[in-house]
Amino acid sequence: MTTLVSRERQAVAGDHSVGVAVIGCGYWGPNLIRNFFDTPGCHVVAACDLSETRLEAISRRHPSLAALTSVDDVLRDPTIDAVAIATPVNTHAQLAMRALEAGKHVLVEKPMTATVAEAEALVALADASGLTLMVDHTFVYTGAVRRIKQMIDTGELGNLYYYDSVRINLGLIQHDVSVIWDLAAHDLAIMDYLIAQRPTGISAVASTHFPGGMADVAYLTVRFADAMIAHFHVNWLSPVKVRQVLISGDRRMALYDDIESTEKVKVYDRGVRWNDDPLEARRDALVAYRLGDMFAPVLDQTEALRNECAHFIDCMRSGETPATDGHAGARTVRMLAAAERSIAEHGALVPLDD
Amino acid sequence: MTTLVSRERQAVAGDHSVGVAVIGCGYWGPNLIRNFFDTPGCHVVAACDLSETRLEAISRRHPSLAALTSVDDVLRDPTIDAVAIATPVNTHAQLAMRALEAGKHVLVEKPMTATVAEAEALVALADASGLTLMVDHTFVYTGAVRRIKQMIDTGELGNLYYYDSVRINLGLIQHDVSVIWDLAAHDLAIMDYLIAQRPTGISAVASTHFPGGMADVAYLTVRFADAMIAHFHVNWLSPVKVRQVLISGDRRMALYDDIESTEKVKVYDRGVRWNDDPLEARRDALVAYRLGDMFAPVLDQTEALRNECAHFIDCMRSGETPATDGHAGARTVRMLAAAERSIAEHGALVPLDD
Amino acid sequence: MTTLVSRERQAVAGDHSVGVAVIGCGYWGPNLIRNFFDTPGCHVVAACDLSETRLEAISRRHPSLAALTSVDDVLRDPTIDAVAIATPVNTHAQLAMRALEAGKHVLVEKPMTATVAEAEALVALADASGLTLMVDHTFVYTGAVRRIKQMIDTGELGNLYYYDSVRINLGLIQHDVSVIWDLAAHDLAIMDYLIAQRPTGISAVASTHFPGGMADVAYLTVRFADAMIAHFHVNWLSPVKVRQVLISGDRRMALYDDIESTEKVKVYDRGVRWNDDPLEARRDALVAYRLGDMFAPVLDQTEALRNECAHFIDCMRSGETPATDGHAGARTVRMLAAAERSIAEHGALVPLDD
Amino acid sequence: MTTLVSRERQAVAGDHSVGVAVIGCGYWGPNLIRNFFDTPGCHVVAACDLSETRLEAISRRHPSLAALTSVDDVLRDPTIDAVAIATPVNTHAQLAMRALEAGKHVLVEKPMTATVAEAEALVALADASGLTLMVDHTFVYTGAVRRIKQMIDTGELGNLYYYDSVRINLGLIQHDVSVIWDLAAHDLAIMDYLIAQRPTGISAVASTHFPGGMADVAYLTVRFADAMIAHFHVNWLSPVKVRQVLISGDRRMALYDDIESTEKVKVYDRGVRWNDDPLEARRDALVAYRLGDMFAPVLDQTEALRNECAHFIDCMRSGETPATDGHAGARTVRMLAAAERSIAEHGALVPLDD
Repeated sequence: MTTLVSRERQAVAGDHSVGVAVIGCGYWGPNLIRNFFDTPGCHVVAACDLSETRLEAISRRHPSLAALTSVDDVLRDPTIDAVAIATPVNTHAQLAMRALEAGKHVLVEKPMTATVAEAEALVALADASGLTLMVDHTFVYTGAVRRIKQMIDTGELGNLYYYDSVRINLGLIQHDVSVIWDLAAHDLAIMDYLIAQRPTGISAVASTHFPGGMADVAYLTVRFADAMIAHFHVNWLSPVKVRQVLISGDRRMALYDDIESTEKVKVYDRGVRWNDDPLEARRDALVAYRLGDMFAPVLDQTEALRNECAHFIDCMRSGETPATDGHAGARTVRMLAAAERSIAEHGALVPLDD
Repeated sequence: MTTLVSRERQAVAGDHSVGVAVIGCGYWGPNLIRNFFDTPGCHVVAACDLSETRLEAISRRHPSLAALTSVDDVLRDPTIDAVAIATPVNTHAQLAMRALEAGKHVLVEKPMTATVAEAEALVALADASGLTLMVDHTFVYTGAVRRIKQMIDTGELGNLYYYDSVRINLGLIQHDVSVIWDLAAHDLAIMDYLIAQRPTGISAVASTHFPGGMADVAYLTVRFADAMIAHFHVNWLSPVKVRQVLISGDRRMALYDDIESTEKVKVYDRGVRWNDDPLEARRDALVAYRLGDMFAPVLDQTEALRNECAHFIDCMRSGETPATDGHAGARTVRMLAAAERSIAEHGALVPLDD
Repeated sequence: MTTLVSRERQAVAGDHSVGVAVIGCGYWGPNLIRNFFDTPGCHVVAACDLSETRLEAISRRHPSLAALTSVDDVLRDPTIDAVAIATPVNTHAQLAMRALEAGKHVLVEKPMTATVAEAEALVALADASGLTLMVDHTFVYTGAVRRIKQMIDTGELGNLYYYDSVRINLGLIQHDVSVIWDLAAHDLAIMDYLIAQRPTGISAVASTHFPGGMADVAYLTVRFADAMIAHFHVNWLSPVKVRQVLISGDRRMALYDDIESTEKVKVYDRGVRWNDDPLEARRDALVAYRLGDMFAPVLDQTEALRNECAHFIDCMRSGETPATDGHAGARTVRMLAAAERSIAEHGALVPLDD
Repeated sequence: MTTLVSRERQAVAGDHSVGVAVIGCGYWGPNLIRNFFDTPGCHVVAACDLSETRLEAISRRHPSLAALTSVDDVLRDPTIDAVAIATPVNTHAQLAMRALEAGKHVLVEKPMTATVAEAEALVALADASGLTLMVDHTFVYTGAVRRIKQMIDTGELGNLYYYDSVRINLGLIQHDVSVIWDLAAHDLAIMDYLIAQRPTGISAVASTHFPGGMADVAYLTVRFADAMIAHFHVNWLSPVKVRQVLISGDRRMALYDDIESTEKVKVYDRGVRWNDDPLEARRDALVAYRLGDMFAPVLDQTEALRNECAHFIDCMRSGETPATDGHAGARTVRMLAAAERSIAEHGALVPLDD
């Protein structure tokens, strides 16, 4: 890492339309292009990919874009203020650092980097540069997750008992990334956003069912200083698609079901009563819990990526720290790496010191 | 344990109605009484409990029963051939062993015993006695679990990838037993019945949210010699009731949802394709899985306990080994105890040598 | 009908345990017996049925009951204050009138009578007698229907747009009663309880699929003086069991799903906006409705029949008019008869003048 | 209507890419443009709309298209072989007839025309012209409806008992079209495709809740020569979105739920048994039905409009009659008009003579 002189925050001037380039036009890149097209205050200048075929497809849909095969061409273009990086994960760190060094604001796809060392170097560089570094933790920008965050922060749920997350479906086994770095990256990022308390350790187990492949089924457990526990099930071999999070507190309990079309968040005014008297406990064992109303709040239905692109442009202009900044990205990478290490150590608890 | 001379199998004579006594008339005992009343080939002779209040309630409904407060009275009654034990778990071993020593066939509620040592002593005594020892692993006697067993045994699902079980609801925190010994006892017993392969180790994490209480949320992982993995989520602090098992194999994938009223078992003719060619894998990443029909077989709707009582009487008469015999009970207790030890060791993998 | 002298209200004295007899011990009678056993302030004296087999079954379970084959014996027994009639519908009127004439309070299964003339005669006799006549419109005594009534009465839903009811399942085609008199009797009784406004007419269509059988699929439409419309789908030939009512008003909309185990009633703070400007209407066509929170109130979970038996005993004691009195029974029978007439007239609208 | 000389079938030559124009660029037109772009064997030449604003939006996305405000310009362009009409329904007939007269093949949005007279004139002209007239009954081109058609045609369901359709949601009340012409048009078109037997009459009731508006809640009943009955519930004032069709036959019963993401069609091997013996009927009333497996066939997931566009181009080339030709469009319009007349006549049965 080059030595960096700490600089003033480099906010984009308020009345200037931000020039954006998208690097990587595979699955996710075109979504970024489409959304930046619809985001006020910016304009998409260029798309960049190694594959000419992909660039041609982009050009047919967006003939106004410069189609570039060289990242250098992107980085030296003075009309480009910001780059969005949607390339394979092992290239994220290098591309993001080059972009920062070229004075570009950066939005990088999740997971932010492939290693903790990369994550730390990138964050340090971003902090020193005064430029915006934001990670594409998309779900953080959904109406559902935003509403749950509000519930937790205002104490609607009370002190949390546990956080239980399931993200399973039928997916193609990938070669270059395990189900943890693919799916759990989403879930750890959501938890990182929702739960202010920092975890103290992580353990994980996984299974690999195809020779030469990577883990396709995994279970992660995240521990905290108190009795709070978080657990994640990620799985590419499920016949059914499930995306559910249970967050239970001593005041209320919430269910976030991302598959539901309208009522994605349900809040239950329910709880259990602790019987101090063992005799009474036995007698009332089947009835002594509190049952109250359930309600499903109306949620902002805006596409998450739309919100996210707007937030990125806003942060560039205002100098505000993004909700999913480089530090959030690094915390998530640290948890992913710790999970991987735990798997190698047969599920041992790997400490996380923030 | 007294020294035992191995005896001939003591089957009940074919034309004799089996006399049954139920020991323990709390929550589960009355269900046993009701079902034995409806089971051909037997008759209920006595109910036994320390509480006179409970016995009175039983007598109002079943005035023909002898209501006994002393187990001795049950055990010395020659008209009683068999006892069903539905008392707190820490009394199971002693009561079951006394009953076997008195020459009674025994059905004992799950979990069979509170410790592995007790389980082994009880099984040894039962084996030596030639009497029937059966454990009340109720779900094994449901139409759903029976049908899944058939699917696995006939190869309909193929080689299994994983077994994922969730049993969560809102329950009163109990004093004398953790959520593992209460709920996971069901799930480990179901898995023990379904999966012929024996597990090699178990790890578990849990959380306790009430001072002086026992674990109320727990996650267990069971490992096998190959890539097969089993996982269990048991939880008393969930706002919603879920009872689901996913069993995926390389031929088909099954979902067992015990909450569904009719289609409890769904079989999906689905799978993933492993791409050997990395380029193709990337290109086809979103589509290359196999999607086929789903079907939900019609299931035997008989109450599980009814089937179980009939099976118990049949085994007594025929000398047949019960589907959930003492060995199944002991295997389940071994897993529960190993889970508990793993929790104490921060989730370390505890070996299981069968 | 005999001429009747109007009498004083004949309430049962407050400190006297009411003696109850149940006439008809087929499917429903045993449920009545069980619930009256558990109802404070009364005791079950006798069960009456033409079938000795049925009476024997009752006696085994309830040896204290007098098992009678003659209704005369019931009616002349001075220890019997009230009778519950659960016989085939064509016998209801005659039995209920004889019971009233014998000075007994009467609870009669739905539908109250087989014809409008019978219903009117029975109600006149009950009114004249000063005795309690109550109809077993069971669903009116559920927590769900009670809560919806409260919502409508307090204006939570606003002015009602429509009432849409579906009750379908797979049932055995019956010989003596059509799907309308069997299933729609429930639904019309629920609507009669919930909606204060009286309907002005009814139309119905039906289909009969078995030679010699009665209608097994039917659709009923109930009209009111204003734009409010009610519709009922009843069906014995459905592969799936559905029991749903939609009640939409201009303030909120409610869904009552009786199959749901816990959230049976959901209230949606939703509505549509009427665009006066045709141009705007076209432009905004897909978005201009109001979406708000949904909530599912906690409901009283007491068994409906338990509430109903208690209410019957209360009304006898207090002289209070039952929520489902003879007039409610007669209104329901009038709607059923009008539906039948409409079917015979190819769906013509048959007026209902209350 | 001009006098027409019957002409030879005018199929488009096999090796020529068909030129397509889309008339009407409001809600549906852009979907047609997008899908014709992706349909092999054709190319989109022009988009036509009265609104310059709409045309500009189209041009931004598809700069290669001619953007025309005059239909005359479309009709006189010799490079345009076919037009797709997605304008308000009251303009359909005139535009379609002018297009046919100009020698263009025609795809017209549903409902085909606003009146029966228009429908008949249009069909006559199309038949005489030898050109392809196809109606955009979109759902007919879904994998779900195709699979159900196959089930019915091969006798998998047996003789049909009934057809029950529900299509309800929360929609903006429209000014120029009732819920029947908007929503029931879909459902009657689906039924027309699925059921070979022709209906003999239709009755309908509806309610209008906004002054100056059109019907927003409606129920339609379609009668056949035998006991088969079809029923439709369409509704813009429902808090929940439901799109379900039940089709029960004497061999099997099917549920088509368009909201389900994967298992849209479920087939139940269930039925009822007709008891000839009244005594047995009463005794067995609750159990005598047949319960068998349920299965959900895998369905073609291609977007319906994609299939439909390809079918339109195929029919033009091959001279094949479209699955949803002008006659299907006319039958649907006849049912819609009959429903409207029945509503005006208080639900009277309006005969349909095909």
